[in-house]
Amino acid sequence: MAEPLRVALLGCGVVGTEVAQRLTTHAEAYAERIGARLELTGIAVRDTDRTRAGIDPALITDDAEGLVGRADIVVELMGGIEPARSLILKAISHGASVVTANKALLAEHGADLLAAAVQAGVRLEYEAAVAGAIPIVRPVGESLAGDKVQRILGIVNGTTNYVLDKMDSEGWEFDDAVKKAQELGYAEADPTADVGGHDAAAKAAILANLAFHTPVSLSDVYVEGITAVTAADVARAKAEGYAVKLLAICERLEQADGSDGVSARVYPALVPHEHPLASVHGAFNAVFVESEAAGELMFYGQGAGGAPTSSAVLGDIISVARRRVLGGRGQSEPSNGALPLLPIDQIRTRYHITLDVVDRPGVLSKVTEVFASHGVSIETVRQKLAPVDGAGNDGAERAELIIATHLGAESALAATVKSLEKLDVVNAVASTLRVEGLQ
Amino acid sequence: MAEPLRVALLGCGVVGTEVAQRLTTHAEAYAERIGARLELTGIAVRDTDRTRAGIDPALITDDAEGLVGRADIVVELMGGIEPARSLILKAISHGASVVTANKALLAEHGADLLAAAVQAGVRLEYEAAVAGAIPIVRPVGESLAGDKVQRILGIVNGTTNYVLDKMDSEGWEFDDAVKKAQELGYAEADPTADVGGHDAAAKAAILANLAFHTPVSLSDVYVEGITAVTAADVARAKAEGYAVKLLAICERLEQADGSDGVSARVYPALVPHEHPLASVHGAFNAVFVESEAAGELMFYGQGAGGAPTSSAVLGDIISVARRRVLGGRGQSEPSNGALPLLPIDQIRTRYHITLDVVDRPGVLSKVTEVFASHGVSIETVRQKLAPVDGAGNDGAERAELIIATHLGAESALAATVKSLEKLDVVNAVASTLRVEGLQ
Repeated sequence: MAEPLRVALLGCGVVGTEVAQRLTTHAEAYAERIGARLELTGIAVRDTDRTRAGIDPALITDDAEGLVGRADIVVELMGGIEPARSLILKAISHGASVVTANKALLAEHGADLLAAAVQAGVRLEYEAAVAGAIPIVRPVGESLAGDKVQRILGIVNGTTNYVLDKMDSEGWEFDDAVKKAQELGYAEADPTADVGGHDAAAKAAILANLAFHTPVSLSDVYVEGITAVTAADVARAKAEGYAVKLLAICERLEQADGSDGVSARVYPALVPHEHPLASVHGAFNAVFVESEAAGELMFYGQGAGGAPTSSAVLGDIISVARRRVLGGRGQSEPSNGALPLLPIDQIRTRYHITLDVVDRPGVLSKVTEVFASHGVSIETVRQKLAPVDGAGNDGAERAELIIATHLGAESALAATVKSLEKLDVVNAVASTLRVEGLQ
Repeated sequence: MAEPLRVALLGCGVVGTEVAQRLTTHAEAYAERIGARLELTGIAVRDTDRTRAGIDPALITDDAEGLVGRADIVVELMGGIEPARSLILKAISHGASVVTANKALLAEHGADLLAAAVQAGVRLEYEAAVAGAIPIVRPVGESLAGDKVQRILGIVNGTTNYVLDKMDSEGWEFDDAVKKAQELGYAEADPTADVGGHDAAAKAAILANLAFHTPVSLSDVYVEGITAVTAADVARAKAEGYAVKLLAICERLEQADGSDGVSARVYPALVPHEHPLASVHGAFNAVFVESEAAGELMFYGQGAGGAPTSSAVLGDIISVARRRVLGGRGQSEPSNGALPLLPIDQIRTRYHITLDVVDRPGVLSKVTEVFASHGVSIETVRQKLAPVDGAGNDGAERAELIIATHLGAESALAATVKSLEKLDVVNAVASTLRVEGLQ
């Protein structure tokens, strides 16, 4: 194992607290994945007096500069332009790797910060700055680096998507939907940055930079928010087959002279119901990408919140840490911390079993007794009295039983099916299918 | 610019041809993104006599070994276990970076190949091996490296998804759907690997490796294919609120002693209609990930085909090339090959305009004349004769016109709205919304 890497955390709000906690609770797993331990050397905050649940008070400091000067990896989660910008530049000049979730800073000064990182030969990662937990910076910047991105349509602000979605599904007016979003903690007390489209515009600027290798800053993005959208607009759109969504759009467009240009813009738009973005509900985010070779791609998930955003930040921390340990060409060991493999009979699942049974009294009781004897709990039984397909010509009446089980041991479920096959009242087990994706 | 990097291509099928062509046509853009030119030094094939459209015959060779020995980056697209495995090991031992799309090889020998890469300090990338164009290897392996993946449910075989989707939407029997898939080129003449679930199982093994840092090989994966699924099964599932999908499942499960184990399995399963995977139609792929911090994520796109798969391969080539040029900590220049920024009035879009107009003959003619005078083409006009909301109490009859335009210049559309506002028969422009996401 290599020398420990010193991690400095700047800021300890909702995301910072999650990151600090996971650095402690998952320390062993991270060390295995990196090949070195991550040592959280301190957390710089403005208010050093406040206690933070689960955070060692000895880590808290107000000396951000000093912390940065002694770090291998600087994680900036304070937000705002200054002092975040100066501290990141200081970290870069010290040769530290930087991870940030600061979309406002990146949208305004991203090109300069990246140029400084290039100059110093260090990494600046910012997966969490766009669409929270959804991996989008790495897919667009790396996975699609050999493709030609034509267009990105993103639902990248959860607050406005919640508001528009409720106006659509419940018929609420804008003000009522915003109030509800505030009650649920989806919207700030001052929701201007969200409903005015400025938060989405910052993300549009970052995506345009990534997708088109072109410096685009916040002031280059055309912005219309959703404050003028009425319940009547949303209802009319719905009747015509559209959902109203606030979209961050980055597009490669051919100009009059045949050369390409880039447009970055944010506005509420009508999206056809059959488009995958129309099905993105509540506070979820999704980014739809159209590119020359890959065609249509969509990335979907939670765009905000402490835990989801911390996932992206921690992924970046591990990525830069691995690069420091392994060097540029190196591959990390795939099998550190391996888990035992479980055969199919050790998992738990649900079955839907369709039985072709004889239609006479007492059949259901015999069948359910088999489930009980294997300890399998039944959720629903539906009986169809009409003769099942393929019923023989022996004249006997048949029925179909569809039995849905609760979650149970696969071995017990499989044994149940075996026993059912032997039951005299069962003509055949017509179908056995497992159920996945239930909450 | 650094020294050119020598790229050797092994195999020249559908994907290989696309990759070779794009390496030529996009050479300038790639050089800007990497900081070095990619020089395609040769393409090793078995049949050197066949001509390949768009490929320089001078590049074709049957000397794969020789080609590998002189390469910085080896791109293996030949498929199968041997000689692919030996050639990749040879490339690794020469210090070359390797890119492969060979899921069968990775599922069987992935752990050994990765261990060899770790040992040699080189990269082995394989984004194209799972779900074609969809970035999933990098998101799971890197973006989620700081998270704890609980479960992955993947629709990772386009052939079987097409078959099951048609059984669902058209009521076709399995055999008919397979025949249709073969006619459309979605299924092989021998569809066994797809419908038997073996292709999906290879991808499940690779995903389990990535998500759980645990060596899982093809033989560890429990497999049931879709050959036993009948039209009656699918119809019954549909009536009960489920879609039948062939799922590749990788899951972290708690064992009896409280420690975690890993299950990797493939079978047709019932997925509730409200689950995002149920809406994945045709030959599309999607991977749904549940993880501790990030929550639910989904990645959606084309899982096969020459162009989509080449996108993933080329992304990997650029990624390993950048690492060779920049070293481990380095950041690549973000703004090489920058494009001009286009202001909003230079884009093209569609408008839906809702007008509150006076209800008398000739109004429609006056309104449409305004569109014509700005060169804006109308797609549909709908008139609602009922008084619009908020109609005044001046006694005059009002109507609502909803006008959808064709794609037009934003400047002309905006000017049209301005002119409409001044028109005497227009009481108000009630709403102007752009349309996005139309095909």
